[in-house]
Amino acid sequence: MCRWAAYRGAPLYLEELVSSPAHSLIEQSHCATKAMTSTNADGFGIAWYGDRPEPGRFRDVLPAWSDCNLKSLAGQIRSPLFLAHVRAATHGSTRRDNCHPFVHDSWSFMHNGQIDHFDKLRRSMEAMLDDDLFNARCGSTDSELLFLLALQLGMREQPLQAMANAIGFVEQLSNEILGSARVRFTAAFSDGKALYGVRYASDANAPTLFAAPMGGGYCLVSEPLNDEKDTWVEIPECSAVVVTDNGLDAAEFKPAVAQSHAVEAAE
Amino acid sequence: MCRWAAYRGAPLYLEELVSSPAHSLIEQSHCATKAMTSTNADGFGIAWYGDRPEPGRFRDVLPAWSDCNLKSLAGQIRSPLFLAHVRAATHGSTRRDNCHPFVHDSWSFMHNGQIDHFDKLRRSMEAMLDDDLFNARCGSTDSELLFLLALQLGMREQPLQAMANAIGFVEQLSNEILGSARVRFTAAFSDGKALYGVRYASDANAPTLFAAPMGGGYCLVSEPLNDEKDTWVEIPECSAVVVTDNGLDAAEFKPAVAQSHAVEAAE
Amino acid sequence: MCRWAAYRGAPLYLEELVSSPAHSLIEQSHCATKAMTSTNADGFGIAWYGDRPEPGRFRDVLPAWSDCNLKSLAGQIRSPLFLAHVRAATHGSTRRDNCHPFVHDSWSFMHNGQIDHFDKLRRSMEAMLDDDLFNARCGSTDSELLFLLALQLGMREQPLQAMANAIGFVEQLSNEILGSARVRFTAAFSDGKALYGVRYASDANAPTLFAAPMGGGYCLVSEPLNDEKDTWVEIPECSAVVVTDNGLDAAEFKPAVAQSHAVEAAE
Amino acid sequence: MCRWAAYRGAPLYLEELVSSPAHSLIEQSHCATKAMTSTNADGFGIAWYGDRPEPGRFRDVLPAWSDCNLKSLAGQIRSPLFLAHVRAATHGSTRRDNCHPFVHDSWSFMHNGQIDHFDKLRRSMEAMLDDDLFNARCGSTDSELLFLLALQLGMREQPLQAMANAIGFVEQLSNEILGSARVRFTAAFSDGKALYGVRYASDANAPTLFAAPMGGGYCLVSEPLNDEKDTWVEIPECSAVVVTDNGLDAAEFKPAVAQSHAVEAAE
Repeated sequence: MCRWAAYRGAPLYLEELVSSPAHSLIEQSHCATKAMTSTNADGFGIAWYGDRPEPGRFRDVLPAWSDCNLKSLAGQIRSPLFLAHVRAATHGSTRRDNCHPFVHDSWSFMHNGQIDHFDKLRRSMEAMLDDDLFNARCGSTDSELLFLLALQLGMREQPLQAMANAIGFVEQLSNEILGSARVRFTAAFSDGKALYGVRYASDANAPTLFAAPMGGGYCLVSEPLNDEKDTWVEIPECSAVVVTDNGLDAAEFKPAVAQSHAVEAAE
Repeated sequence: MCRWAAYRGAPLYLEELVSSPAHSLIEQSHCATKAMTSTNADGFGIAWYGDRPEPGRFRDVLPAWSDCNLKSLAGQIRSPLFLAHVRAATHGSTRRDNCHPFVHDSWSFMHNGQIDHFDKLRRSMEAMLDDDLFNARCGSTDSELLFLLALQLGMREQPLQAMANAIGFVEQLSNEILGSARVRFTAAFSDGKALYGVRYASDANAPTLFAAPMGGGYCLVSEPLNDEKDTWVEIPECSAVVVTDNGLDAAEFKPAVAQSHAVEAAE
Repeated sequence: MCRWAAYRGAPLYLEELVSSPAHSLIEQSHCATKAMTSTNADGFGIAWYGDRPEPGRFRDVLPAWSDCNLKSLAGQIRSPLFLAHVRAATHGSTRRDNCHPFVHDSWSFMHNGQIDHFDKLRRSMEAMLDDDLFNARCGSTDSELLFLLALQLGMREQPLQAMANAIGFVEQLSNEILGSARVRFTAAFSDGKALYGVRYASDANAPTLFAAPMGGGYCLVSEPLNDEKDTWVEIPECSAVVVTDNGLDAAEFKPAVAQSHAVEAAE
Repeated sequence: MCRWAAYRGAPLYLEELVSSPAHSLIEQSHCATKAMTSTNADGFGIAWYGDRPEPGRFRDVLPAWSDCNLKSLAGQIRSPLFLAHVRAATHGSTRRDNCHPFVHDSWSFMHNGQIDHFDKLRRSMEAMLDDDLFNARCGSTDSELLFLLALQLGMREQPLQAMANAIGFVEQLSNEILGSARVRFTAAFSDGKALYGVRYASDANAPTLFAAPMGGGYCLVSEPLNDEKDTWVEIPECSAVVVTDNGLDAAEFKPAVAQSHAVEAAE
């Protein structure tokens, strides 16, 4: 179980979500309150949008609470749109390439959850990727592969539809190969303009997702960052949210039924 | 709060204490059961005696559970005498030089506990060291400094007496500088021949220390490695134990009253 | 350009090849004398055979000359058969999973050289692997993939033939996809019994390979470890050597012409 | 021998000095052209001034050329005043705490050179520090200690005078203890307002220091960053330079004769 926070609003020092609040990400990485895994010490990462279309990114494998670089950067970098993540490994060894957020061109992505029996599905998922996205794969996590799959399936044009395509493809693939499918997926992603959040699980048991107004915009988190319970609204399962200048919009999120030829191609 | 295990007996693969048992050190580093700190993810270290008088040592700052090197080494190295430690930082940043065990010539040392207000005592403690021991200091922990202080005060000749001298010196120093003193100290150390354990606290609240027969010799641990409660004997506060070919001997441990000139010299 | 040394003979402390000689691997990692790349600072690794069929392995991304763990281990571990490698990255980012030697079951492998245009061939090479070998891939180097490909093509039964198959397959694949092929390959590998060395390049420009008697057995190196020029015999291009209890045997090494169906399957 | 670059002028992306030019710092870290040490692979660091009085800082022990975090940060961070450093270790092990730049409050400092026989002088140098500066020492380098010593001796009020005091103190100390003294010192430091550079050696053999106009301000470097030889002016030995809004001012730099009581206190 990982922890993450994402923000879109007036420029904010990253430290306000990463290290300052009583229940900041770093505090959560020491001792999570709502999750089974008692610690998140397999690395962390931040991605933020500044003057350029591509986000900056900083990742490391040390526990977040002991990383002086993270502390200094979070106190210096101010951004209107950023993602921050602390990791407890489920798939993939502890190395920088496996730390969220993942970045491709102007897109960033981070994820809490997992694909059951990923080892048996990984190869068919990778087969779906064009050469350039296949070669862009740096690590070995299911999360990174879901991100690349969404890029393959239209993320640049229709981000939420592409994510629905990606998850639908994985569920169908798993059903065909294994006879069952379970994907748990609570994610945030961005193109540097809008901030997207999704909460979904095949078994209606998705990791939590909360939203709160902040800095004239919104903050999305896997767990509330403080005890002001009235501030944080839980986003229900099977939902997607989009944060733009117009505020936060929510919609139903439903995996798309993969076209049969897609699965065939991957076999 | 750190966790550690030490062994002296018939040659044993390190993995039997480090990674194999249900409550191995690596498992404990994920989720400690008896201590306040819920996780031990600030690094780990092992020291073992082989063919040479100096022990081998391997330390790293990654969480123990995600380190492939540790897993491979623990499955290859077999030793009749070794120390293993997982660290939750109290003093000193997360870096290899601050990970236990500490090693000097043929001596190795590891520690669970802390010196209250160490920052105010550190300088006077360092002033006690001869140049060669002063220059041997690599990290910034209170643990390493206690070890060097014991070496300064006769560890090579009378290990337990020297440790009593070191702790007595620190308590007296703290009383003089701060008006009070609290040292908590549960430690294991060795010269490659005998294995020593000490459990002591100024406030009679020392971290636990347990012993169990193993491999024809004995295992000393900060926490029992499995649920066989009958196997593990709790060593009482203010005790020292020595494991040799003759088995395990226990004795009272009492900090020595520091000679006044020692404290004067450090002022 | 990487540097490596391999040994099979009477048990030897690793330090005798890794850190002790005037031109040891660690010294070479600072300043190579015969190669274009002026430094080898992208990590290192050692694999050694002890009491168990599987070798131990230790790898890290720090420069070899500054790693205290390596120094301590090389002074403690004594082995009749080991591989040691310092890395200058050509393909694959600087991370432990990309450091040689690679290990699979009882096999170990390390490599100096490269496959030209690997990025364009990688996917078809991976497609050749059965699921278990595909899933065993941890890093992103051409070296690891050549090793897995050899395992796929019969390494356990006929090590040198399998390596000839693997290189032949890659050359044919490259010719079909790119119209040309260049593989440079100077490698050592072992199953814990024999030690194998290969020197080959498509363009007759293979990295060097030397052998010298040592410890009743032989040492294979990418560069002589000292200036005793009479000691080191240069192994010619297109050669394979095998070190066993019977000494060192040399033979011609020629890539096998890949069966056409193999390449078809990968397309 | 280390390499560094410092800049004060119109806001500039760090990458323009760190990674972009033909002879950028990262390129130099691979293969230095004017120095004896053939490689700089013991870590790197950057310190930059942004919205806050305290500089941001990022350091790591990996070779600079293989660090993705550095590349991303250098492409995102734009600053009117920054220091960048690649390290080849002379004193102090390879760890983050020993990487330049060193930072204290609003001050930053980096250094190329060394104090001869530092091991014999270190203790007396540390004895000069007040408790707060003594406790601020994180690493074990002579560089960090020179910086703290300058802070102790008035850096906040008279930066160049304080640096002259610090070096003068070390030379006098070395003369008294060892009968001779050699300090080589080419450094840059800043309080977030002015940028200071110093080139000095006891034996008139100081590491080089160059300056060039850039971005309406100036760049100071240990080695020219490109081959435009007319652009770079070599700063002569025994010189100090100050870059402010008024441009670059140069002055003589001469170690101050330490007051005898200072040395006495340290004995």
